[in-house]
This record gives sequence, structure tokens and C-alpha cells, in this order.
Amino acid sequence: MDNFIKKVDHVAFAVSNLERSYHFYKDIFQMEFMGYETVESQKIKTAIFIQNGVKIELLEPTSPESPIAKYIEKKGEGIHHICYEVFDIEAAVLYYKEMGANFINEKPTDGIHNTKIVFLHPKNCGHLIELNQKMAIE
Amino acid sequence: MDNFIKKVDHVAFAVSNLERSYHFYKDIFQMEFMGYETVESQKIKTAIFIQNGVKIELLEPTSPESPIAKYIEKKGEGIHHICYEVFDIEAAVLYYKEMGANFINEKPTDGIHNTKIVFLHPKNCGHLIELNQKMAIE
Repeated sequence: MDNFIKKVDHVAFAVSNLERSYHFYKDIFQMEFMGYETVESQKIKTAIFIQNGVKIELLEPTSPESPIAKYIEKKGEGIHHICYEVFDIEAAVLYYKEMGANFINEKPTDGIHNTKIVFLHPKNCGHLIELNQKMAIE
Repeated sequence: MDNFIKKVDHVAFAVSNLERSYHFYKDIFQMEFMGYETVESQKIKTAIFIQNGVKIELLEPTSPESPIAKYIEKKGEGIHHICYEVFDIEAAVLYYKEMGANFINEKPTDGIHNTKIVFLHPKNCGHLIELNQKMAIE
């Protein structure tokens, strides 16, 4: 591999009305719908679409305590983060850290769809970046 | 085709320091760099990267009058818009409009790299969406 990044995995959007945004992507754009997910740890409900291998994740907070609720309160609805899939998340974190990158969490945590995830701090380049690795199903 | 959308074309990021963000993508992520572009009409300078066919466009305002400068002033740095490439932009605009979508500009204008572009209003689904069509080189 040339670098640690495999692909653009998804783009995540903070939305205040999931049904409105779902309707737009489903009925107007007619994009392929993958399903809903609820992520208790983040207090969000998501609707996930896919287009040429890139997932479009619409995130609605289910509680005012959700990081997404706080984001919307501060900045309004918008595009929350981009996620790059990496081949090896432990190796990528070590390397990027050595190169001076700042992380929100360096230790990978469990993401949806059997992934390990970390977040890079927006101060690196002006926006929030997630890295994920698809884990083999045991 | 199933719908009007061909692919996720690019994700555009509002940055206040292009060299810092360029450095991050080029030297740390080691993503493939496509080049710089200056868009006089938008008063921006962009650095464009590509990953599995999706372009990463870093946009830095070159004037306080730039829409990107105003975005950063209001919301801070972040992800500005997502662009979906469509097969036929005139047909897509007509159809989406009939379906109730709101546009910032309905009449396609010239984008970079020989494209025609329109912007959908964020009120549709909570974020700014560009549509583009690659035009045949005459």
C-alpha cells in the first residue's frame, strides 16, 4: 500500500430532523438506503445511504447531551465529519502521531458495523476526521 | 440509470490556513495531490486531493468578501459542502424542483474542470449540496 488510507468510507451530517433529511435522500435523490442505526453511546439515531461505495450518514441527536446536539447548538446543522477507512488503525495512529497529528482518542473504540474507530482533532487541518478499520467477523 | 446521481464527486472543506491543511493531507495522510486551483468568482484558492475517486477540496478564502470567508466567520472552519455528480444536470434540476427541492441557483453555472454546477439550498436536508455534470470537451 502507498499509505494507510484505503478509501473515503463515509461523510456524516448533523441533522435536526432526521425524517426530513431521510425523505430528501430517499424520495428525491432516490439514493440507496442501507438502514437506520441507533448509537446509544453517542445518543444519536442515524439513517445511512450509500453512493458508489461512500456512505452518507445522517445523524440526529436523541438527547440534548449528544455531541451532535451540542454541535447543532453551536454551529447549526451541517457536515459533521468525514471518515477515512484505513488498513490498520493501530499502525495508522502510531504513524500519524509520530508525524505530529493530534487525536481526540488515540485508543480505538468500537464503532457501528464491526469497526474500530478513532477521531483526529479538527486543529490538525480545520475539520473533524474519523478513521475506521473494518474488523474481521470472529 | 436508477436515478440522476452518478457518484460522490467531492467534499469541500472551508479552511483558514491552506498550507497547514495541505501539509496534513500531503505529508501526513500522503493522499494523492491533484493540484491547486484559484476560483476568482468565489475568491478562493483550493488544494485538491483524491482518494478512491472522491476529491477532497480544501478551500481558503482569498478575500473577506469570499463566501468561504463569511462561512468561516459565522461557523468556523469545517466541511462546507458535498458534491454529487449527476448524469444530466438540466434534467436533474427539473426533476428535483418538481419534487419540491429548493435551489440556490437553478441555472447551471461554470465550475472548475469543465463542469456545470448548481447548489441546492441547505434547508432541504440540513446541509449545502452541489450538483455537477462533467461537460464533454469541445
